[in-house]
Amino acid sequence: MNRNLLIASTSTIHGSGYLEYLKDKVEEHFADANQIVFVPFARPGGASHEEYFQFAKKFFDNIGKELVGIHNLSDMVNGLRSAEGIFTGGGNTFVLLKALYDNKLIKPLRDVIARGIPYMGTSAGSNILGATVQTTNDMPIVYPPSFEALGAVPFNINPHYQDPDPASQHMGETRETRIKEFLHFNSQVVTGLREGSFFKVADDVIALQGPFSVRIFEPGKEPYEVSSEEDLSFLLG
Amino acid sequence: MNRNLLIASTSTIHGSGYLEYLKDKVEEHFADANQIVFVPFARPGGASHEEYFQFAKKFFDNIGKELVGIHNLSDMVNGLRSAEGIFTGGGNTFVLLKALYDNKLIKPLRDVIARGIPYMGTSAGSNILGATVQTTNDMPIVYPPSFEALGAVPFNINPHYQDPDPASQHMGETRETRIKEFLHFNSQVVTGLREGSFFKVADDVIALQGPFSVRIFEPGKEPYEVSSEEDLSFLLG
Repeated sequence: MNRNLLIASTSTIHGSGYLEYLKDKVEEHFADANQIVFVPFARPGGASHEEYFQFAKKFFDNIGKELVGIHNLSDMVNGLRSAEGIFTGGGNTFVLLKALYDNKLIKPLRDVIARGIPYMGTSAGSNILGATVQTTNDMPIVYPPSFEALGAVPFNINPHYQDPDPASQHMGETRETRIKEFLHFNSQVVTGLREGSFFKVADDVIALQGPFSVRIFEPGKEPYEVSSEEDLSFLLG
Repeated sequence: MNRNLLIASTSTIHGSGYLEYLKDKVEEHFADANQIVFVPFARPGGASHEEYFQFAKKFFDNIGKELVGIHNLSDMVNGLRSAEGIFTGGGNTFVLLKALYDNKLIKPLRDVIARGIPYMGTSAGSNILGATVQTTNDMPIVYPPSFEALGAVPFNINPHYQDPDPASQHMGETRETRIKEFLHFNSQVVTGLREGSFFKVADDVIALQGPFSVRIFEPGKEPYEVSSEEDLSFLLG
């Protein structure tokens, strides 16, 4: 299967600027793209599409790439189909997914990804690459017509993965508990991707990069860690 | 409007047994009910209905109340309609809400609540009393046919409310950020209810009880705190 994905847990790590920790990887990922289509629909903090676009554009200006906001295109579907690269930023996964359905962009996105056009996602923009968005951390502030996502990879992604805090006195569920609950109702593997780590998927090869191992949740198994040196090909089934 | 609600943030506070901190309040709330119908559909940790029921039953045995699991009734709707008291436990809000829709229990629940039958909710069981479940903290592990909830109160509830941790280096959204994002897309007031605190609603009177103030989120306003001594009647509109 053709695909060329950079799947990041977060756009920003603590104490660093927007996409700064990923700069070299972004340049490499989009080496052959002069123009990149930006999908601002996740609207972090309720930002407008244009506010979010202008924020992201500064980073891409600095690396000499032209960023085009999909919200500014008169024909979004064709704009996407002719994209040389796509970047979907983080924010609220439900808001993002609903906007993709409302604007009939799910199939065009699947198609362009399957043609091997480089796609980068951070946080919610990564989440939608999975089978479903059902391992998002976000609040369901809008109601999308389905939880089914792009399925560019067969597993589900939990971005911003956090380990349980042994000192916590909070009685709400830990991330691990939530993902285990997910596996009572769903069968796909879940990857807990920590901030600063990311997947690179080139066709049928997947690699983990960044400082942390990934936590793997499978039905009927205790969760376990896989490091960036180990084989992750089982994730692509 | 008739209603008799005990809306708790959590069933259990740190270092204490199940419902232990609420024991006196539960006894008072269900003083006139010999038999209480338990709704186990939120399935915490993926527990079966019967496992969850047996767990909750121990507490009610200790206070001399008969607990009846709705999942064990041949006619759930009539069982609910003839209930003397209702308790909906926590777990996953999406799983709970979907089960209520699937079993056609939304309207019967609304009706029995509107007759003033005492209802107690903890966590997810509280969340469903609001206008919608869109301020839940839970993962969307199943897809309910709607996010609309019971509307026994006109506001939304965020149980297990947590203040931002100023020392955190995590880049995921804080609870406050998430609720502010909710208010970009929705108009109802949100109440951030901390663990150990709870609302009592008797017809058109609402009181906050427990050790903490409640954090109020309204569109176009900075969030603010209201203590248990202050008037909360604006919440009932």
